[in-house]
Amino acid sequence: MSTAKLTIDLDALATNWRSLDAKTNCETAAVVKANGYGLDAGRAGKALANAGARNFFVAAAEEGVALRRAVGPGVGISVFSGHMEEDARLLRDFNLTPMLNSVDQMLRHFEALPGHAFGIQLDSGMNRLGMERGEWAAVAEIALGQGPVLIMSHLACADEPDHEMNARQLREFRELTDGIEVPRSLAATGGILLGADYHFDLCRPGIGLYGGAPYAEAMPVVSLDLPVIQVREVMPGETVGYSNTWTAARPSRIATVAAGYADGLIRAMGSGGIAAFAEGKACPIVGRVSMDLITIDITDLQAVPESLSLLNAAQTVDVLADAAGTIGYEILTSLGHRYARAYRG
Amino acid sequence: MSTAKLTIDLDALATNWRSLDAKTNCETAAVVKANGYGLDAGRAGKALANAGARNFFVAAAEEGVALRRAVGPGVGISVFSGHMEEDARLLRDFNLTPMLNSVDQMLRHFEALPGHAFGIQLDSGMNRLGMERGEWAAVAEIALGQGPVLIMSHLACADEPDHEMNARQLREFRELTDGIEVPRSLAATGGILLGADYHFDLCRPGIGLYGGAPYAEAMPVVSLDLPVIQVREVMPGETVGYSNTWTAARPSRIATVAAGYADGLIRAMGSGGIAAFAEGKACPIVGRVSMDLITIDITDLQAVPESLSLLNAAQTVDVLADAAGTIGYEILTSLGHRYARAYRG
Repeated sequence: MSTAKLTIDLDALATNWRSLDAKTNCETAAVVKANGYGLDAGRAGKALANAGARNFFVAAAEEGVALRRAVGPGVGISVFSGHMEEDARLLRDFNLTPMLNSVDQMLRHFEALPGHAFGIQLDSGMNRLGMERGEWAAVAEIALGQGPVLIMSHLACADEPDHEMNARQLREFRELTDGIEVPRSLAATGGILLGADYHFDLCRPGIGLYGGAPYAEAMPVVSLDLPVIQVREVMPGETVGYSNTWTAARPSRIATVAAGYADGLIRAMGSGGIAAFAEGKACPIVGRVSMDLITIDITDLQAVPESLSLLNAAQTVDVLADAAGTIGYEILTSLGHRYARAYRG
Repeated sequence: MSTAKLTIDLDALATNWRSLDAKTNCETAAVVKANGYGLDAGRAGKALANAGARNFFVAAAEEGVALRRAVGPGVGISVFSGHMEEDARLLRDFNLTPMLNSVDQMLRHFEALPGHAFGIQLDSGMNRLGMERGEWAAVAEIALGQGPVLIMSHLACADEPDHEMNARQLREFRELTDGIEVPRSLAATGGILLGADYHFDLCRPGIGLYGGAPYAEAMPVVSLDLPVIQVREVMPGETVGYSNTWTAARPSRIATVAAGYADGLIRAMGSGGIAAFAEGKACPIVGRVSMDLITIDITDLQAVPESLSLLNAAQTVDVLADAAGTIGYEILTSLGHRYARAYRG
């Protein structure tokens, strides 16, 4: 057994959903796109449905199909990318609700699937997905006549509570939708934390469910243990790993563990001062992260461990992300397919 | 259909194997670890076996099992991580050859699977995998008495031809193995290019097969096309994407395409000046790469394209890697699982 072990705590996931739900007076859905942020959309979806989530969001119709197969017919599944060409059959057969992003998508939807549930995505300033103010003004009446189940938009800077963009997008969203008798949604995790003005009728947390910033109270959901393949003693002056980037300054004991950037342990992490843990001690990663292997300085341990912990309650996805110059979201969605995965809960 | 299309050219893969094979007078194996550098070890393995490869290398026994199921019994499959605990049944049932990295692994192997084929991995200076000089001196006689099928080591700096480490590792490997009547292997792609001194009896290219540096003559193996979900006009001063990192300097047409860092398009790429292509024109990525979406400035195109090309013969994995501050290997192994994959050849 030389593959690392990824443990996914579905109870923690459900707890995070409940605690985010408790922060609002509106419905709380759940975002399970990118295969449930890398953790398995089906398992995550079932755990969240058991916790009480009635509506889920995915990025593409294909993801909706996989989720529907896993969670069954009892919940709503919405598709952020809307109604793309060739999506009609999937949307219909798997009862998926597209969030229509443009007049093109709206015409496609009304023609291909008349009467089929849909939502509207408006752009409130992020300029990524959703209808613009002018587009919406031109088609709002027609769209509303067809009975959308949701009108939504997405915040560009919700992770930065003091960013003036938040208030600007809120104002724009209100101007576009005030007075319309359709449920509205603006907030993901960051938006929930911005306060009640941002909550409207439905919030749709993603990252916070999976234990990542900006939801500081989140319970960690993933832990990762790397099995030791081999241990060696190196003398001062000896180098370790590709391109000799690390040189031993003292007699050192180096463990080679089984996981690398092909498992989503981003290569940039290698130069970020990250440690793996055993005996409660931090053992620094030394040398470059390679495709399948990482080398770790275990000189200060009492004994050679069977494995070292890279992700745990103390060293979360956000800590790894900081070291790799990215965000916890990317650490999660990069987690690889060679891990032996264990689901708790 | 809102998932991007990854096309994998198995003919180019086979061509790269043949052209690397032609550079040596020894056997050429193929490294297909990390699921064939992310491209599907089974399909890659079958294409390479058809081209003439008789021996394959993977990182872990579990990968060997998947490869054996795909390619059948006719080829050799070796495991770099050697013989780990609980590996015996897999090694035996799927006829896998562990490269033993330590005395511990050797004792485990001889006890659990007497008579089962094995190789020896020696450390010639990288300090990552393989027996050290002292360890090898102590057990060489016993090991050789059991008839290893290969003695191998790995170069730390082969991608840098002028690095003094190459000659040092070559010298060490010779000192450890000269006079031993067992086939030897030191070179992967970089080692092949270092010249005949490094070739010994078997070379084992990896990255060069898949179209990556340092094999400059490699034919590109992957291409990636990103479907356009939506197009919008933005005015000077408007921002695009998370955290408002890009501001339009002119009236601009922005396409939102379906792929993001959850598909392996590393987030760091977003600030690296990368473009996607249509009508033969470079259209710069603007704003942050998000989980499922990328925004691209298509102002200079004549028409709105159905998709834009991100990986192609001109913009290879190494170009993306440079922009993301990493290496082509990581771009390949990160390629995601939401793509519609098409295999040519």
